[in-house]
Amino acid sequence: MRRATPEDLPAIVGMLADDHLGAERESPDEPAVYRAAFDRLDKDPNQHLVVAERDGATVGTLQLTVIPGLSRRGSTRALIEAVRVHTDARGDGLGTRLIEWAIEESRRQGCVLVQLTSDATRVDAHRFYERLGFEASHLGFKMML
Amino acid sequence: MRRATPEDLPAIVGMLADDHLGAERESPDEPAVYRAAFDRLDKDPNQHLVVAERDGATVGTLQLTVIPGLSRRGSTRALIEAVRVHTDARGDGLGTRLIEWAIEESRRQGCVLVQLTSDATRVDAHRFYERLGFEASHLGFKMML
Repeated sequence: MRRATPEDLPAIVGMLADDHLGAERESPDEPAVYRAAFDRLDKDPNQHLVVAERDGATVGTLQLTVIPGLSRRGSTRALIEAVRVHTDARGDGLGTRLIEWAIEESRRQGCVLVQLTSDATRVDAHRFYERLGFEASHLGFKMML
Repeated sequence: MRRATPEDLPAIVGMLADDHLGAERESPDEPAVYRAAFDRLDKDPNQHLVVAERDGATVGTLQLTVIPGLSRRGSTRALIEAVRVHTDARGDGLGTRLIEWAIEESRRQGCVLVQLTSDATRVDAHRFYERLGFEASHLGFKMML
């Protein structure tokens, strides 16, 4: 597991697009939009975009955001977004290791809570997060602007 | 609606604590922990902690976090947290105005998506967000660290 670099972008975008939801949302043939977004991420010290590497290939990714706040006695929380594991690397615990990294990094950053949302249709993902100790205590609302 | 200052902290913490969930989570008698958290928030340019003021009183608050990202073609999204309206100010649309401010500010910040989670027990809040155009498309998972 290591911090993502611009050289990882094709692999990350490929993973984001290789998914029944992502296929409609991503444009892997437009690298400039992803490079601009990477630069915004990279200069924000509360953003941690990481990749998992295996045998020289980028096979997993997630984004961790550290969010200071007032509630829960001034707690800092962490938000996990954009978790992906390459299809070739599924089924041997890489997803678990990605999330465990995120939990450990959240602790290291002083967070008392780690949270994420998962599309209501991703039933397998829900079981996965519950096995790792997350509780589906909330509804996640979104609005496109 | 204006940016929160340290002078707003007692009112904001009072609103966070005045709630069946918040009552157990907050410690209004420990201002130092909230002041330290305010300072962390205030120096992060992607954090927007605001209050609604009416007749000189602080009657509402929310926290907006701007989150750059790679997914959805390098989209920046916004996360709404810690929405509270003072009990004395409920029932005349202040909550709506708070969320509408957050949506407008999210657009101004270049976000293409605004999201929030709401505790599964807050059924009235769910109806409120759906009326405002949010879709309960996700499950929200949390883990205390």
